[in-house]
Amino acid sequence: MSPSVKVKERIALGTKTERKLEKIDVLDKGYVRLVDVMGDDLRVVNAARVSYAKESKQLSDKDIRLIKFLAREGHTSPFRHAMLSFEIYAPLMIARQWWKYVVGSDHVMDAWNEASRRYITMEPEWYIPDENAWRSKPDHSKQGSGEPVDRAIGREATQRLKRQLEEGLKDYEWALEAGIAPEQARLLLPSAYGMYTPWYWTASLQSVAHMLNQRLAHDAQAEFQAYARAVYELVKPYFEHSLAELLKNKEI
Amino acid sequence: MSPSVKVKERIALGTKTERKLEKIDVLDKGYVRLVDVMGDDLRVVNAARVSYAKESKQLSDKDIRLIKFLAREGHTSPFRHAMLSFEIYAPLMIARQWWKYVVGSDHVMDAWNEASRRYITMEPEWYIPDENAWRSKPDHSKQGSGEPVDRAIGREATQRLKRQLEEGLKDYEWALEAGIAPEQARLLLPSAYGMYTPWYWTASLQSVAHMLNQRLAHDAQAEFQAYARAVYELVKPYFEHSLAELLKNKEI
Amino acid sequence: MSPSVKVKERIALGTKTERKLEKIDVLDKGYVRLVDVMGDDLRVVNAARVSYAKESKQLSDKDIRLIKFLAREGHTSPFRHAMLSFEIYAPLMIARQWWKYVVGSDHVMDAWNEASRRYITMEPEWYIPDENAWRSKPDHSKQGSGEPVDRAIGREATQRLKRQLEEGLKDYEWALEAGIAPEQARLLLPSAYGMYTPWYWTASLQSVAHMLNQRLAHDAQAEFQAYARAVYELVKPYFEHSLAELLKNKEI
Amino acid sequence: MSPSVKVKERIALGTKTERKLEKIDVLDKGYVRLVDVMGDDLRVVNAARVSYAKESKQLSDKDIRLIKFLAREGHTSPFRHAMLSFEIYAPLMIARQWWKYVVGSDHVMDAWNEASRRYITMEPEWYIPDENAWRSKPDHSKQGSGEPVDRAIGREATQRLKRQLEEGLKDYEWALEAGIAPEQARLLLPSAYGMYTPWYWTASLQSVAHMLNQRLAHDAQAEFQAYARAVYELVKPYFEHSLAELLKNKEI
Repeated sequence: MSPSVKVKERIALGTKTERKLEKIDVLDKGYVRLVDVMGDDLRVVNAARVSYAKESKQLSDKDIRLIKFLAREGHTSPFRHAMLSFEIYAPLMIARQWWKYVVGSDHVMDAWNEASRRYITMEPEWYIPDENAWRSKPDHSKQGSGEPVDRAIGREATQRLKRQLEEGLKDYEWALEAGIAPEQARLLLPSAYGMYTPWYWTASLQSVAHMLNQRLAHDAQAEFQAYARAVYELVKPYFEHSLAELLKNKEI
Repeated sequence: MSPSVKVKERIALGTKTERKLEKIDVLDKGYVRLVDVMGDDLRVVNAARVSYAKESKQLSDKDIRLIKFLAREGHTSPFRHAMLSFEIYAPLMIARQWWKYVVGSDHVMDAWNEASRRYITMEPEWYIPDENAWRSKPDHSKQGSGEPVDRAIGREATQRLKRQLEEGLKDYEWALEAGIAPEQARLLLPSAYGMYTPWYWTASLQSVAHMLNQRLAHDAQAEFQAYARAVYELVKPYFEHSLAELLKNKEI
Repeated sequence: MSPSVKVKERIALGTKTERKLEKIDVLDKGYVRLVDVMGDDLRVVNAARVSYAKESKQLSDKDIRLIKFLAREGHTSPFRHAMLSFEIYAPLMIARQWWKYVVGSDHVMDAWNEASRRYITMEPEWYIPDENAWRSKPDHSKQGSGEPVDRAIGREATQRLKRQLEEGLKDYEWALEAGIAPEQARLLLPSAYGMYTPWYWTASLQSVAHMLNQRLAHDAQAEFQAYARAVYELVKPYFEHSLAELLKNKEI
Repeated sequence: MSPSVKVKERIALGTKTERKLEKIDVLDKGYVRLVDVMGDDLRVVNAARVSYAKESKQLSDKDIRLIKFLAREGHTSPFRHAMLSFEIYAPLMIARQWWKYVVGSDHVMDAWNEASRRYITMEPEWYIPDENAWRSKPDHSKQGSGEPVDRAIGREATQRLKRQLEEGLKDYEWALEAGIAPEQARLLLPSAYGMYTPWYWTASLQSVAHMLNQRLAHDAQAEFQAYARAVYELVKPYFEHSLAELLKNKEI
């Protein structure tokens, strides 16, 4: 197996002893798994210094200053020689926003492979916020959420969702048994925004940082912030300096 | 208003008199509207012949042979200087497949702007197949659909869908009234796969042809085929030769 | 011919009477020609407001505020529904930098068709700065140029360049006559950095603005600034508000 | 140092014992160095099977059939989760063609960092074909090369090139000493098509295969074929099955 195939828990070099994680659970049934990493801070530096025809072997203070300079001046191409692959399991409403930041931005060094309900028979699972997890409308913004709603309202929301899932699932199963094609039967799937979907995402460090800059922000949907935080924790030990600079001025 | 802003019904130049359409209705409530077109067959030729420092003014037989050559040999870059903009209104299950062919393919000369249920208050509309429009599973394939299902099954499917929509919509409206943030309330939206969403799509002729080659095929979802056919009808009068060559060997 | 095929000199709508140009000469033998335009400020607005299901027909103050908002907040996708096509004739050193800003940036909604010296027989032309056009090294920067050099040095530089071109061209012509393949004979072409090359460039308004933001800056190579200025003059009348916002804080 | 940072000579798993190389010399002074690899055949399979929520741990016959199926049907997105980084040193005429296949194609999962003559002071080096390496024009094609030219012609070509380099280099050095800015002095650099330039290229396996399919072909420039072959040799041991399928029907 190639040395880059497995991301293992291990002791990081450098000043800190850091435990590298493979996988972080998110929401009630989701997760982010770091599948692989290519490159490190030194790689960014060496890509930027290609003209000097020699490779630094260890990250110097001068190298760290170069990383700061590149991030500050928007010279982002060296950060595209570092790549990361993730496996993600998240509700469709998150998958669609995530995708939007892939396409909608110009950050195209991304690969994406996602399961499709057109033919798979994978058991459907749903994100079901518990009674404390429902949030009110924000006061002064067109997007995001405000404070939690009253407990009683939260309780009813969870109940309504569960009942809708239960009844809708009966419709869906009836349709499959009645021989309706899966690509059409899915019209009867309840709460599709909350249905979990798995996908593979491969992206450059620049693209990952772009997503983090947007989705760690306060007006991002709370569920997405949870995924962004997991991505952040998984990536940080591998690109200590580059990630810090690309996310500068973000209090995380 | 810029001369390119409006695509009007008008008499095409050339051998055929052809009525150019602006908009084609699709499914029960959807449509494809051609917002704008940049370029024509001649543009493709002139982009390919940039080295000759002079522009053809009228499409000659030699120019048509060049278009055939470019398409046959996979020299597709000249087809990327012709651009098209559409406004589309389609169920989410179609929007997501469409998007997948934008990202999943490498055809990145695409812009995409879509409404989001995180904050809009646009009235939701759903695709509701009538009792004759439900299809059975295909016999020998992992995707697509087979023959229509029995009328009685179709009738029940439509009824179940309508009932699910009715009840789910009550949940959704209850959630909004109870003050739950729209980004979370949408978990209670029923049949999200069938909910209509509007978007703007701007793509090169190459990208449009790529989508057509995939989505006009027999194993494409019937609902998507209907949209692909509308796109095809809207585009054809503007790129008679280029489109024919890029879709060659496809019986349409 | 499609209404969008020709960009003509004409009176612009709006408050100002403005003459729209087709082509601007640059350097001693180069030019930028605006081949076509798709969209206008209103298009940007309508793409951003796709969720409202109706199109503004005339640009209002509210629309202009939306453009400001989109540019300020970095919501750039609506600017990718406006497209522009150019034909450019510039020295190779400019073509290569231009290309770098296409690839090196993430702005991928670009098409590029360029002549190649592997087989064309187009007469070569070179950029030959006259004796006043040679610039000294900048004092405090790693790139760009400083003041003009002494007239005597400029005169010698032009002479040396002309002599190198004259003698090198003999080598190249000898090689072609001796039957050496053009793809290899070009090794004998003198001053390739200064050799003119023609290309077609199709890009979104966002991509054009990105190039202008970088190449109108003071540390950009003077020859490139001249091309950037030509692009700016050609584009400005078509996207008065959008371009101003995307270039905000740039003194032009 | 991250486990993925260094590609070492090592014994590959599987049926064959294979020595993995780091670097291959090309032409008189150039090379291709494999900087890093992310993923393997198994990764392609796991990305394609993301819906099954479990990862194969060892490549089975069924996995190999899936790779064949994906390549044959043009389902290329799984091949974009495997990434490769190279450092390349090649004449500018090759660098420009290579770049063209990055931009000109839609294969955008590429990062590119290249030295620039605008400010670097790196000693220039040139590709100088020896007297046996000059090729004649092809008989029946618009591109490529035919048989070697007569030895006497080859000898003169090499001599002319050397003399042009010698005299041109004097002009360039004179210009730098006279204080002309490097960005302009490079107009006096001789034989820029043959000047070596170093760059970093990071690309997906799909993109690498696309380049190989084009540049290993018989009508590709011989010098580029030499680089393509080096890339092929470096990549092959890491993606035995995927590369074979993506290059299928190419006799290499």
